[in-house]
Amino acid sequence: MLLRRPHRLRLLSSTTTNRSPFPLTVPLSHPTYIIWSSNTSLGKTLVSTGISTSFLLSPSSSNPKKLLYLKPLQTGFPSDSDSRFLFQKLSSLSLRRKLPLFSSHSVLLSSLPAAKSFKPNDFSLNVSHEMCELGFYEDRKALEDGNVAPELVSETLYAWEGALSPHLAAEREGALVGDSELVKKVERRLKTDYWKMVLRGEIGWFLCGGDCRGRLGGISGTISAYESLKLRGYDVVAIVIEDHGLANEIPLMSYLRTRVPVFVLPPIPQDPSNDLMEWFDESSNVFNSLKDIMLEAYLERIRRLNEMPRRAGDVFWWPFTQHKLVPPSNVTVIDSRCGENFSVYKVRNKEYITQQFDACASWWTQGPDATLQTELARDMGYAAARFGHVMFPENVYEPALECAELLLDGVGKGWATRVYFSDNDSPTESCHELMVLALKGSYHGDTLGAMEAQAPSSYTGFLQQPWYTGRGLFLDPPTVFMHNGKWILSLPEVFHSGTPEPEDITFRSRDEIFLKSRDSSNLAGLYSSYISQQLSQYSTLSGTKLIGALIIEPGKKYISLILLFDIIFLLMLVNECQQCKIPVIFDEVFTGFWRLGVEAAAELLGCVPDIACFAKLMTGGIIPLAATLATDAVFNSFTGDSKLKALLHGHSYSAHAMGCTAAAQSIKWFKDPITNLNITSKNSQKILLRELWDAELVQWISLHPSVSRMLREDDIYCRPLGNVIYVMSGPCTSPEFCTQQLLKLHTKLEEFTQVKPNMEII
Amino acid sequence: MLLRRPHRLRLLSSTTTNRSPFPLTVPLSHPTYIIWSSNTSLGKTLVSTGISTSFLLSPSSSNPKKLLYLKPLQTGFPSDSDSRFLFQKLSSLSLRRKLPLFSSHSVLLSSLPAAKSFKPNDFSLNVSHEMCELGFYEDRKALEDGNVAPELVSETLYAWEGALSPHLAAEREGALVGDSELVKKVERRLKTDYWKMVLRGEIGWFLCGGDCRGRLGGISGTISAYESLKLRGYDVVAIVIEDHGLANEIPLMSYLRTRVPVFVLPPIPQDPSNDLMEWFDESSNVFNSLKDIMLEAYLERIRRLNEMPRRAGDVFWWPFTQHKLVPPSNVTVIDSRCGENFSVYKVRNKEYITQQFDACASWWTQGPDATLQTELARDMGYAAARFGHVMFPENVYEPALECAELLLDGVGKGWATRVYFSDNDSPTESCHELMVLALKGSYHGDTLGAMEAQAPSSYTGFLQQPWYTGRGLFLDPPTVFMHNGKWILSLPEVFHSGTPEPEDITFRSRDEIFLKSRDSSNLAGLYSSYISQQLSQYSTLSGTKLIGALIIEPGKKYISLILLFDIIFLLMLVNECQQCKIPVIFDEVFTGFWRLGVEAAAELLGCVPDIACFAKLMTGGIIPLAATLATDAVFNSFTGDSKLKALLHGHSYSAHAMGCTAAAQSIKWFKDPITNLNITSKNSQKILLRELWDAELVQWISLHPSVSRMLREDDIYCRPLGNVIYVMSGPCTSPEFCTQQLLKLHTKLEEFTQVKPNMEII
Repeated sequence: MLLRRPHRLRLLSSTTTNRSPFPLTVPLSHPTYIIWSSNTSLGKTLVSTGISTSFLLSPSSSNPKKLLYLKPLQTGFPSDSDSRFLFQKLSSLSLRRKLPLFSSHSVLLSSLPAAKSFKPNDFSLNVSHEMCELGFYEDRKALEDGNVAPELVSETLYAWEGALSPHLAAEREGALVGDSELVKKVERRLKTDYWKMVLRGEIGWFLCGGDCRGRLGGISGTISAYESLKLRGYDVVAIVIEDHGLANEIPLMSYLRTRVPVFVLPPIPQDPSNDLMEWFDESSNVFNSLKDIMLEAYLERIRRLNEMPRRAGDVFWWPFTQHKLVPPSNVTVIDSRCGENFSVYKVRNKEYITQQFDACASWWTQGPDATLQTELARDMGYAAARFGHVMFPENVYEPALECAELLLDGVGKGWATRVYFSDNDSPTESCHELMVLALKGSYHGDTLGAMEAQAPSSYTGFLQQPWYTGRGLFLDPPTVFMHNGKWILSLPEVFHSGTPEPEDITFRSRDEIFLKSRDSSNLAGLYSSYISQQLSQYSTLSGTKLIGALIIEPGKKYISLILLFDIIFLLMLVNECQQCKIPVIFDEVFTGFWRLGVEAAAELLGCVPDIACFAKLMTGGIIPLAATLATDAVFNSFTGDSKLKALLHGHSYSAHAMGCTAAAQSIKWFKDPITNLNITSKNSQKILLRELWDAELVQWISLHPSVSRMLREDDIYCRPLGNVIYVMSGPCTSPEFCTQQLLKLHTKLEEFTQVKPNMEII
Repeated sequence: MLLRRPHRLRLLSSTTTNRSPFPLTVPLSHPTYIIWSSNTSLGKTLVSTGISTSFLLSPSSSNPKKLLYLKPLQTGFPSDSDSRFLFQKLSSLSLRRKLPLFSSHSVLLSSLPAAKSFKPNDFSLNVSHEMCELGFYEDRKALEDGNVAPELVSETLYAWEGALSPHLAAEREGALVGDSELVKKVERRLKTDYWKMVLRGEIGWFLCGGDCRGRLGGISGTISAYESLKLRGYDVVAIVIEDHGLANEIPLMSYLRTRVPVFVLPPIPQDPSNDLMEWFDESSNVFNSLKDIMLEAYLERIRRLNEMPRRAGDVFWWPFTQHKLVPPSNVTVIDSRCGENFSVYKVRNKEYITQQFDACASWWTQGPDATLQTELARDMGYAAARFGHVMFPENVYEPALECAELLLDGVGKGWATRVYFSDNDSPTESCHELMVLALKGSYHGDTLGAMEAQAPSSYTGFLQQPWYTGRGLFLDPPTVFMHNGKWILSLPEVFHSGTPEPEDITFRSRDEIFLKSRDSSNLAGLYSSYISQQLSQYSTLSGTKLIGALIIEPGKKYISLILLFDIIFLLMLVNECQQCKIPVIFDEVFTGFWRLGVEAAAELLGCVPDIACFAKLMTGGIIPLAATLATDAVFNSFTGDSKLKALLHGHSYSAHAMGCTAAAQSIKWFKDPITNLNITSKNSQKILLRELWDAELVQWISLHPSVSRMLREDDIYCRPLGNVIYVMSGPCTSPEFCTQQLLKLHTKLEEFTQVKPNMEII
């Protein structure tokens, strides 16, 4: 976790096991806690020793118990060693209390300077990577039988000599450790059948908050530490402080109210010759209570996790779900999300938490990776504290203004002059015209009004939408898709008479579809005349009905399938409408903000709309917010002396400060090469997102015969639609991660085909 | 700010001037900064002294400058005194640099023990309240002319003898200081024409973050302190650390990226006899840059605040707004919100920030007071870090489950078994039937579908809503209102033939309207027969149209006016519908969660719905989330073997974790007597909210002839509707605060009548 990649440094130190950017599977069969403190030398080791004593050396308890004390990173070694301190104190207390204990102590790896201090005469030290294999082990057996496993395992993974922050000590001693190596070592230990305590750890999900020994500043330091842990998604189960006669627990408890109990330890003797035995005896009541609370919180958590599927089935009404088809065993228990991954609770023989790639990007909303999620969390706290929500009309506040300016300078650049905010992602707020021109199979959101702009389908039938009438002229669009590894253009029947050339309907690569030369092909002419013929036919036959606007998604079509429209058709459609003065609306709710490799998909089309709607990724997917951008002409058509000419519609949360804060940050992050390593700019003019999904792998998978819901059972969370699997990452996701997911996907499809070759496709 | 009200303790220490719970007006004519640190004895005073030196004793600068250094609370006095230290160092540096300086130093009040230590022979010390008027003053004049004001004013407001946290020292020395007294004193000083620096202050809005002198732990301590400040809505303009050769600035800068600059000071001499003169010389480059950044940030902030109205007018498309009628001078610049108040930027001769009561509760969404807003901010950060957003169908995660369970156990108790979540507050998601039965003048939200359930009005005309058809049977409801101090029932024409008794149409008090005995009055019978006659007439005349549901707001009617429906009429309506098996929908988006003194307004009616919709206050108003509760019968009507029978509608952010977290907290806080002092429970069964608005005052104001938009210019933010002013607080707002607002409102109405007696009512 050391200074190799400073951008990632805080990532590891800020994530819990189940929230690590590395794929981790951690069993929950025993409690795992981190002991944290608000500063150094504040007694974390003493507290760990006290809890261990309560657990292992309490006369009342009879069951065999096992405890692992893990110090992942020790600096100041060998003069300082927390794992040795704990091992020695427990041994002494075992003798003092006449309770036998089989305990072991080991130090795995260290820097060369630390190793030389520790074993000055050993010149055979084995340097593995940049660390020495120290392999130190000692134990104290309580039984003759050497085959019994130790009841206490106290272990240091990595040690350095300098009494400095680990990142500094590692750098100075030329002994760096990689993130993934450390995580793997810790993960292996978390899988053992022991209670675990990790000291000031980088890893874990339950926490025992730090003690505070400082006099002045002890209260605020503890509160700040607590808040920093909360801002990283940690749960804190208890706080321990030392008694200095200052009654610091009173303001702490007032701040924490009933959320977290505060324990007060007797003053710690400052005389270095004091062996602390009496202090441990005096403190045993506190440590016993602390241990009980840790056990209780663990059991409560497991109970809750186990009950969640049943309780969810009892009280939730999930959207898009036939509840009769969802038994409790199909319910996914999501313990947290970290960047692109869910952490999911499962029971398969044992309880455990494992990571699942959220391939749906939670309904296409998710953008930030793990690092940016943490930053966004802090900004959400800030925006809530500074603004909460403030109402919008005739008001201005920084997040709304910054967000509007970023939108006009980004996705609206060159055409939009106004931003209208709403609080969800159905984009028809500005679609206030009589009939719409739209494409068959399109889907523009799920409010009753937005559904009217959708051609008839099984989602608009009487059972689903008894009010639906479908107020539009719906055209049949040509689509492109990959099949058997080739890109193919599928033309609706109406174009079949035009007999397009073979080179018009197959493409060697995806890039060919977007070639500028296609704009003037025969096919483009065919499209154009079909569209103008449809428009003039409608105006003749429809009586009083008028087309008020064209609404299209500039890039994909979705309703139970995902396909790409032929971009040339869209371009011809926009041209025709703009010639007829029909306002053009781009629904960029899905396509906006880099989903198609450019900030606004309009860039791909090479034309601009009059109105465009954005949502989902705009806030980094953290909370709902939508924005509709409009040209001056559209805006001015609502300007007048009468209030009744204005757009008198809006939402309670129009331009809410938290949404605008999230949007302002996400819009900036996604296009900043510092925060998004996938951003490239060949020349200073054009910013592009590199391809994240390996084309060959995608092709390989597209050839696979099997698609299944079973994917959700494993480490990819997918919602296949018909025979289409869609897999989505954020704009900042690394291509390596994407490749891993594609490989996993293929493996799962393979496995599944072997197990259930005849499964029904849902 | 001391331990008198522990619940409020953190409130003051966590709010900025413009976010104080006390009404404050603070000019922005000069910069004001707080110097903060991540712990005690970490050099805040040194940094303050260095910045002061750069400002006042820099040879290059020629303009006259004035600086106020304020230490609001000093403990360890008189041996410790930051204001004296700064005064003395500046005096010495003035001599050393041969730059004349007129400086003063004063200590205003202290505890008796501190005063006795300071002036051991003075027995005439004047004890004011619990503090002594110390009134100590000293100065060093650089000029002969005694009339010139000092260039440096260094001042301590309150001092205690014990070297402890102020709350402890104050308690032990029997010398407490009230929050409002302290705020008033600081406010007076902030109004002077000086640059201001407040040390470790409780007050201020710009911040210069703390330095960190600790070795190990310095990085995390600084980051934690920074995060705690962000979680309270503070902006940090710079961070200063001391050089220990550990390069702590590297990880700090990596964490902060470009957000905040980090300055490194030369090591501070540890020898107490060192007068630090050389150290200040060595550090002058750092302090000059720091001063420049502070000045730049201040100027940038003022520039931005001044530009905001014009820029907002250029880029925003506000809902419900005719932009032609909003000149930049009418735009409200909201700098922040704190509980019930906005902090608003104004320019009247000078620039300043002042507080405005948000009487609209930002479109009826706001609930938390200042304390709960801070708590909610932390929870928002936690939820974002732990969950971000995770998609809902077939999934379960803690915030959604907790929120659903709280809803079913609260507003849905006794009838609802299922919760359907959506992400905004238009409640018609479950209103998927053919025609609705609704009341004229009702308003159920502003999506296109929701507006169909609304009777025709100027908001549904062609210009506003060309798709509107009004798919419902709309009944004419009786309403009650206060006029000339009396409660009157207004009956629609249809009831006039029934000649109700006079005692049926006037009420001596509001409580009379809710009397149980009215259920069996003649009027109730009249209502009943009107409703059943309307229903049977509709089923005869409407051909194939069927009534699918009744939708009502159980308590108020809104569309350009706010009135109360006669509750008996609503009850009769529900009874009739339930007899005819017409599902009953309560739109509790506005009324839910204590707006009418009970958690669900349904309690007032004494009957239950089949479906009810909640939003707004549900999340404490911090972010959008809506929930629809339904009975088992409604839920089961969507259950079947076919997916097509399920409710296949939803939003991307259904049950989003941050919304559910906010809702779970708010629902609990609003009904907990510990967090909401307005909650009373006469017996353990029934929880009620006490009346917050003084009835006599409301009556007095209702008699006032004048209602005006000008209110927004002053310290109440109102949006009057016709001749109705509505004023709204959160459930936790103190009745004293409400009374203050009513008094102010009346004063403003008075003033306004005198100024513009003929203003047009908008």
